Amino acid sequence: MSEPAERGVMTEPAERGVMTEPADRPPALAIDIGGTKMAVGLVEFGGRVAAYDRISTPNGDGVDAEGLWRTLESLLGKLVADAGNPPLAGVGVGCGGPMTWPDAEVSPLNIPAWRAFPLRERLRARYAGLPVRVHNDAICVAVGEHWRGAGRGRDNVLGMVVSTGVGGGLVLNGHLIDGASGNAGHIGHVVVDPEGPPCVCGGRGCLEAIARGPGLVAWAQSEGWRPGQADATGVDLADDARRGHPVAESAMRRAGRALGIAIASATHLCDLETVAIGGGLSQAGAMLFDPLEEALRRHARMEFARQVQVVPASLGQTSGLIGAAALIFAGDRYWNAD
Amino acid sequence: MSEPAERGVMTEPAERGVMTEPADRPPALAIDIGGTKMAVGLVEFGGRVAAYDRISTPNGDGVDAEGLWRTLESLLGKLVADAGNPPLAGVGVGCGGPMTWPDAEVSPLNIPAWRAFPLRERLRARYAGLPVRVHNDAICVAVGEHWRGAGRGRDNVLGMVVSTGVGGGLVLNGHLIDGASGNAGHIGHVVVDPEGPPCVCGGRGCLEAIARGPGLVAWAQSEGWRPGQADATGVDLADDARRGHPVAESAMRRAGRALGIAIASATHLCDLETVAIGGGLSQAGAMLFDPLEEALRRHARMEFARQVQVVPASLGQTSGLIGAAALIFAGDRYWNAD
Repeated sequence: MSEPAERGVMTEPAERGVMTEPADRPPALAIDIGGTKMAVGLVEFGGRVAAYDRISTPNGDGVDAEGLWRTLESLLGKLVADAGNPPLAGVGVGCGGPMTWPDAEVSPLNIPAWRAFPLRERLRARYAGLPVRVHNDAICVAVGEHWRGAGRGRDNVLGMVVSTGVGGGLVLNGHLIDGASGNAGHIGHVVVDPEGPPCVCGGRGCLEAIARGPGLVAWAQSEGWRPGQADATGVDLADDARRGHPVAESAMRRAGRALGIAIASATHLCDLETVAIGGGLSQAGAMLFDPLEEALRRHARMEFARQVQVVPASLGQTSGLIGAAALIFAGDRYWNAD
Repeated sequence: MSEPAERGVMTEPAERGVMTEPADRPPALAIDIGGTKMAVGLVEFGGRVAAYDRISTPNGDGVDAEGLWRTLESLLGKLVADAGNPPLAGVGVGCGGPMTWPDAEVSPLNIPAWRAFPLRERLRARYAGLPVRVHNDAICVAVGEHWRGAGRGRDNVLGMVVSTGVGGGLVLNGHLIDGASGNAGHIGHVVVDPEGPPCVCGGRGCLEAIARGPGLVAWAQSEGWRPGQADATGVDLADDARRGHPVAESAMRRAGRALGIAIASATHLCDLETVAIGGGLSQAGAMLFDPLEEALRRHARMEFARQVQVVPASLGQTSGLIGAAALIFAGDRYWNAD
């Protein structure tokens, strides 16, 4: 089986030329930690998720840092035991930000129990002798899509997650870009309208302020949209847009246009080939992608920028786990730290 | 003499540890080709321009592709002969875009005589046996500032040229980013106002549409500024701003604000440490940099983005030549092609 995506400098024999069978090398233990769910998996070199488990992230008043850690530990222990305690290639983790990087003292915005929690140190102690690598969850999604998904075989890819927030990760010249502090890829805070709505970051007119699910819902409600339930999300809004609700349609156009403008800017700055968009809101399909394309083509006018392609992410819900595994399996491209 | 900027992977013995005296290795022949001038130099490993010459770019009706090439050839021949025909490390070139890259068939916007002119091929034939490397002129300025100028010692730097156009180059994770077609760094076409003025690229509201010298002059004139001479430039406008002309002041604020917004977007996307700004308009000093900082701090609000520093470029007019030489001397960081 030939592997077109596996060009460039290779450090591991199994990545050269013909791919070995997944069974030839141990799987990576992969972890994806967000405010809503914690997912764990055993991911093979080929990208297959051979074992998988997930729980809702414990997030009530009684949850403390150590309790949350023990929950994660037991989730991991059960996964590995159920798989017959195989040898592991390493432990790769995507976790909600912010965090220090690469040391990964994590303070996920939506997990109040962890503030400067030493996640990498704990995992290193628990899995002594194995490489442990932690990165931002949106970066892991982007890495997953580059390694085994919609960005495969391209050297210049922006991976995006459009959901409750808008995040991303940047692969340029074939390598993950970390930036000064591991925070490169924050496409959600590219400015698309300098006088636009205030953003949670403290700025104004960021892509995220306009295109995040809760932002869209708030805007639609202010324009007269009345959702069926109190805790309506961007996905409900997209459903109503498909049913022809004019305010819901306008909201999706508004999001699509903001995405198109931000992608045009990113394409001009980084000379991107492919932008892969995942996350709940991306499932709105043409309702979102048509106005996105229209705005992108209006603003991405330099000859080279016209070549960029925007595609849906292809790995689905496990993209973050697969990207976390890539931090281990393809560290030459995705891990630029100790 | 210690060299803090020379960390990371080194391929050439002289770049390890203590820097050797410039005299220990041959200079690079460096070329900077723009619509206004053609400059040539012999640049030493330390970044010193040991010999230099320049002419106005022949650009009249009678100028054809071969005539322009012969002009460049004789300029180079005289420079090298006057220096006593030293051995050369290679030939590095910054040239106005667009061009194919890395083959460098160049079609500089402001040099109509060259359209798909095979610049690299000609130089390779002329300097057989030497490496010949050509990149965009703004990229060479950015590389020069990273190698020996204001971005030295930092791994994540955007170098900008604000002048008749607005260009740039991007160094991330310590390496020059080329993107899919060698066009990464086009900060001038980051969108700062989606409903702003039309841009020469065909888009709307690009940074360049607002902040390029001619754009500023046109805006100021539409607001009632009456310059002393017919062919007034952004530099004249900056002079009038310093003298307190209210429309000229507004124009500089307008440019500074647009620059600040674009830099905020670039910083969030790429997690930049340093932005080095050169080009004629950058000499406006506080008239430009104060409103730039104000807009940047208003929009760059993520914790990591607050750390970014905007500084004037430090190499002056020869930054492009020095960057062209860096393509030869530090190819491990700045040249990702054959």
